[in-house]
Amino acid sequence: MPDASPLLVVTAHPGDFVWRAGGALALAVSRGQRAVIACLSFGERGESASAWRAGKTLEQIKELRREEGQAAADALGAEVRFYDAGDYPLRESPELMDQLIALYREVQPGVVLTHAAKDPYNMDHPAAAEIALHARVLAQAPGVVGPGEVIGAPPVFAFEPHQSEVCGFVPDVLLDITPVWDAKVAAMNALGAQSHLVEYYTDLGRRRGVQASRNSGPNLGLPVDAYGEAYQRYYPQVTTELN
Amino acid sequence: MPDASPLLVVTAHPGDFVWRAGGALALAVSRGQRAVIACLSFGERGESASAWRAGKTLEQIKELRREEGQAAADALGAEVRFYDAGDYPLRESPELMDQLIALYREVQPGVVLTHAAKDPYNMDHPAAAEIALHARVLAQAPGVVGPGEVIGAPPVFAFEPHQSEVCGFVPDVLLDITPVWDAKVAAMNALGAQSHLVEYYTDLGRRRGVQASRNSGPNLGLPVDAYGEAYQRYYPQVTTELN
Amino acid sequence: MPDASPLLVVTAHPGDFVWRAGGALALAVSRGQRAVIACLSFGERGESASAWRAGKTLEQIKELRREEGQAAADALGAEVRFYDAGDYPLRESPELMDQLIALYREVQPGVVLTHAAKDPYNMDHPAAAEIALHARVLAQAPGVVGPGEVIGAPPVFAFEPHQSEVCGFVPDVLLDITPVWDAKVAAMNALGAQSHLVEYYTDLGRRRGVQASRNSGPNLGLPVDAYGEAYQRYYPQVTTELN
Amino acid sequence: MPDASPLLVVTAHPGDFVWRAGGALALAVSRGQRAVIACLSFGERGESASAWRAGKTLEQIKELRREEGQAAADALGAEVRFYDAGDYPLRESPELMDQLIALYREVQPGVVLTHAAKDPYNMDHPAAAEIALHARVLAQAPGVVGPGEVIGAPPVFAFEPHQSEVCGFVPDVLLDITPVWDAKVAAMNALGAQSHLVEYYTDLGRRRGVQASRNSGPNLGLPVDAYGEAYQRYYPQVTTELN
Amino acid sequence: MPDASPLLVVTAHPGDFVWRAGGALALAVSRGQRAVIACLSFGERGESASAWRAGKTLEQIKELRREEGQAAADALGAEVRFYDAGDYPLRESPELMDQLIALYREVQPGVVLTHAAKDPYNMDHPAAAEIALHARVLAQAPGVVGPGEVIGAPPVFAFEPHQSEVCGFVPDVLLDITPVWDAKVAAMNALGAQSHLVEYYTDLGRRRGVQASRNSGPNLGLPVDAYGEAYQRYYPQVTTELN
Amino acid sequence: MPDASPLLVVTAHPGDFVWRAGGALALAVSRGQRAVIACLSFGERGESASAWRAGKTLEQIKELRREEGQAAADALGAEVRFYDAGDYPLRESPELMDQLIALYREVQPGVVLTHAAKDPYNMDHPAAAEIALHARVLAQAPGVVGPGEVIGAPPVFAFEPHQSEVCGFVPDVLLDITPVWDAKVAAMNALGAQSHLVEYYTDLGRRRGVQASRNSGPNLGLPVDAYGEAYQRYYPQVTTELN
Repeated sequence: MPDASPLLVVTAHPGDFVWRAGGALALAVSRGQRAVIACLSFGERGESASAWRAGKTLEQIKELRREEGQAAADALGAEVRFYDAGDYPLRESPELMDQLIALYREVQPGVVLTHAAKDPYNMDHPAAAEIALHARVLAQAPGVVGPGEVIGAPPVFAFEPHQSEVCGFVPDVLLDITPVWDAKVAAMNALGAQSHLVEYYTDLGRRRGVQASRNSGPNLGLPVDAYGEAYQRYYPQVTTELN
Repeated sequence: MPDASPLLVVTAHPGDFVWRAGGALALAVSRGQRAVIACLSFGERGESASAWRAGKTLEQIKELRREEGQAAADALGAEVRFYDAGDYPLRESPELMDQLIALYREVQPGVVLTHAAKDPYNMDHPAAAEIALHARVLAQAPGVVGPGEVIGAPPVFAFEPHQSEVCGFVPDVLLDITPVWDAKVAAMNALGAQSHLVEYYTDLGRRRGVQASRNSGPNLGLPVDAYGEAYQRYYPQVTTELN
Repeated sequence: MPDASPLLVVTAHPGDFVWRAGGALALAVSRGQRAVIACLSFGERGESASAWRAGKTLEQIKELRREEGQAAADALGAEVRFYDAGDYPLRESPELMDQLIALYREVQPGVVLTHAAKDPYNMDHPAAAEIALHARVLAQAPGVVGPGEVIGAPPVFAFEPHQSEVCGFVPDVLLDITPVWDAKVAAMNALGAQSHLVEYYTDLGRRRGVQASRNSGPNLGLPVDAYGEAYQRYYPQVTTELN
Repeated sequence: MPDASPLLVVTAHPGDFVWRAGGALALAVSRGQRAVIACLSFGERGESASAWRAGKTLEQIKELRREEGQAAADALGAEVRFYDAGDYPLRESPELMDQLIALYREVQPGVVLTHAAKDPYNMDHPAAAEIALHARVLAQAPGVVGPGEVIGAPPVFAFEPHQSEVCGFVPDVLLDITPVWDAKVAAMNALGAQSHLVEYYTDLGRRRGVQASRNSGPNLGLPVDAYGEAYQRYYPQVTTELN
Repeated sequence: MPDASPLLVVTAHPGDFVWRAGGALALAVSRGQRAVIACLSFGERGESASAWRAGKTLEQIKELRREEGQAAADALGAEVRFYDAGDYPLRESPELMDQLIALYREVQPGVVLTHAAKDPYNMDHPAAAEIALHARVLAQAPGVVGPGEVIGAPPVFAFEPHQSEVCGFVPDVLLDITPVWDAKVAAMNALGAQSHLVEYYTDLGRRRGVQASRNSGPNLGLPVDAYGEAYQRYYPQVTTELN
Repeated sequence: MPDASPLLVVTAHPGDFVWRAGGALALAVSRGQRAVIACLSFGERGESASAWRAGKTLEQIKELRREEGQAAADALGAEVRFYDAGDYPLRESPELMDQLIALYREVQPGVVLTHAAKDPYNMDHPAAAEIALHARVLAQAPGVVGPGEVIGAPPVFAFEPHQSEVCGFVPDVLLDITPVWDAKVAAMNALGAQSHLVEYYTDLGRRRGVQASRNSGPNLGLPVDAYGEAYQRYYPQVTTELN
């Protein structure tokens, strides 16, 4: 049964899977799919300015971000694996690639979500996307030795970066996340972020919901007060029906 | 029931709906959907070189193309409306627009297919696309007076032009048409075209099928000998599930 | 004195100059510049669905839209000229062009704002942009006969369409409109539009304000609660200083 | 006072800051701003063909290029730091990044200039651009430990590559450098380059000046014999006034 | 013999075929090819500012521009046909199309040159390009009735617009016009234009020559002091040899 | 004599030079040019799934791929050098670069072919392209020390990737390979690949041949049953004649 195949989300930092893909994660969980997050770093240097300013140590900050990330994943009903691969800059390494290839083969994802290919505001984001895409291709090859069975070719979607147009992000998929909006809000609150950020991403959810409503044809009539998330495909959609 | 909403295909010439969208049409029919073709011209000047060389008159050529187009539509199980709006060049006119707005409102399509926005080999193709897109927007507005109820916002797909890359066509949807391949072949043969063209589009169907197979994830494992058609969305997809 | 040269805004419909350029208009007025709006149609067919559903006549709807547009312009402190050139579709005509050339030459604008070049949701928007750009070039030529003096080459900016990415809109200018936010709100309310639209554009103003704040260097430190509008240049910026 | 914030220019080789950004540097100096150049390599392998053909050693060539670069910087009134990071290829290294992060934090630039993101003629140019952009983001983060205070988000401009169109360079800013043209000529002559190069870049300065003149509106009427330099923004402009 | 097939150049105004394609025309003539120019308007309104300011009448200006255009064509050794179709704006009309279809069929060009598809500084340029491209396609069809034999599919090149990058012009062909540079200079002088324009286009010829030299491989070693013109193909090159 | 200058093809894996550039190689050989292939890896991990599934060892697979690659090169009449640089992932290394710089200087190619810059299906392909382009630039510099004479600036063409549009591949050159089609078939058969692949690339050869025929003007009239290969230039073409 297609719906049962797992969802895999690969992000640079803990916040990313909440702000940008929390709806997709909660939606998969609500359908009974397994949802796994590969969180490559804790965002300990680049995404923790206030903790640094408060005088915390590197280890304290990592621990804090891990706890918040775990709580957010719990709120979404998803599993999270932390790879502690370092941020600012996040770099591909043979060890990290081996771990991710093994993860792909263990999870056998039906769908993969990661960052967009370009982000001039944060070089860790495209780095994470490249790592996710490379590991996916390597995990398909029997010649790349390691535990588990090779995977198929799951579709990959980029989730929305902070400033879409400047990152070359043109959404070609608008996902209706209305049924799980409460779970996304709970996950956002679990992050311990400032309240203006929750407000900002609530606005964004409404905005993408309005657009989803305006673009939805008679086969999928959405109300105008829907909540949405925007995605962009890395590969063509394959389908047995146009809609 | 979503599947029951009709498919509308708007093309410049009779051949286009066969070579480029015949699979989608037959697939819709096989699902019990109504399938309607708006064929704006007979391709009487631009697509009928051999008939002109054989000395036929304009009226004879139109009649010939109408018969072939009707036979091809029959082979696909689709309705076809001929608008006789002239080709080489095909031009938007108030009369044509009124007719198409009325058609949209009568058919209430769930999905619309038309040409790509650019084609340096045939200016009638982008003209037909623009006409189809404008009529769709006009048919949505209560202030545009005419018979029938206003329509919603059905998704629109461009079908594949003759030389994809030169026309800026980047397929983002690969449609599996394997189950209806025989119907498409029958329609191609009904056109009375030269056999090398049928061969050419059979090759293309295989090529897009191989690509569909290579891009299909575990949720939709296609065999490598699938047949496919390529499409590009004009608007973002709206969905309740990523796949 | 540069700041004294007028601002000219060319829009397809009355709402556009409020939702998309209201801040720029109010800002110019606040600096003592003349601000003139050329509103090419009343949006009587394409933007007045509820009035049509309420059974109003074409003339009643035009009058209603004129009143709302006038009230909104008043709230911004701007002049508005209505050209009643028809909408859905809006078309270039020799008469309209002559009127606009005369307007350019009368106003002698220092800056021009209009729609983006592409909008698959509303064909009147790119039509208005093309009209505005052509009239500007024609108004520069002494050989195009008519009243007034030829103009120079004022910079032209596209304001933000409804779904930026789908319209190919990539903002390269973020305008801080915080000082005149109240005037924009007053103009939005003057339109008589549904409250959810005011909310939607308030969200957008905040979103562009946050982005302006994140992109502003030490020379222009904006607070994070700024309000903004996004623009895209049609021509390169000419400047005596990089900043 | 905004104008007092420093200008930072990051280049792969000594010639680049003269040919491509000499006007911007001299202009900043003429306004009393501090102007600092980070010259990552001496161009000792890739930009010194005649010296190699003359039989000079690597060290001799580096020394020669350093002297020329220093003389050119002097002619512009700018400070120059040489990082001797190697060319052909220039590579990012942790040491180089630490040095540049420290430089950003020391200088606290109000504006940054560097290469364009693509240059198929010289891979050191995009490498230098990436290094400059990454160091800027890292210098903003309190979690990236090192001397000095974190910086804000200064705007970044790409200066013009040798063959603009092939490098995907589309100028969105034309800078009037007429008042400092003599200083740029002096710097070009200080490089000890062949006279045809000075001629080539004099032609280019005139060409960009003519274009600046043609694009300048009434608020900034430039004479047709202006000299110009072309730039492209990496991030949207933030402004309180459209012009 | 391939070289004997004629060159056809379609331009909006008389100056265009000199500044932008004079080298290609003279080169064809020097090889014994027939070279024909279709000059669609006299540029009587948009390109004749000084004549209007001098108080000349429309007819006087047309006559002046015709004489200059004829003299320039003579200097290049090319035939010129003036179509007097009007400028500012230049518009496609059935009559003009019939004339151009007949011209294509009479000349049977081996190569066609025209404007680029985009030019925000002059709407007549893309209009002329569209007219040239449409007439070429129509002239290929036996069903488009008229005098002469249908044509094949000659390659089409866009010549360089005034501000290449802003017009989306990316040269993919650099033509060495060194052997006929004197003829181009003579044609430029025949136009009666201001001397700074001749200087401007001489600079441009040198610039494109330097680029041609830098891009020319061992099979075509150009000297650095070559003169060049830049072109962009509308259709893929077809060749029996890569070089 | 231009035709005598060698052709250099740089590929990631052995199959690539056959499927994608076999026609160009055979064509060069048929003209008496030297044709050299730099095959960077054996595709031992990423392109040998069936061998891995059959339980072969890494060394056995490399040997097998080497033999097939050698046989295919023989069938084309070309020299092949295997660099055994590893695949999945293929990485640039100082040793590999030194070897390739030496190869460029030894071969002194008149033309270079390699992969396209983007391929989301196989990260080794863009890696090989980047290596080939960098080595070419380095081989031009006297300051990059090593055996042999520096090279000029040979044109570089990307050959066709597996899914052209998704890889951003827009062919600007269609090469007529009809005269050597039999040699390409022999090379394809030498690879020991599955027969459906040979069929797939035979279809593609026909498809590109039909397109070449449709795009070829009167100077190069190709029959409709031609075979073709598609290429995209990395640098502008330099020519003494437009055609």
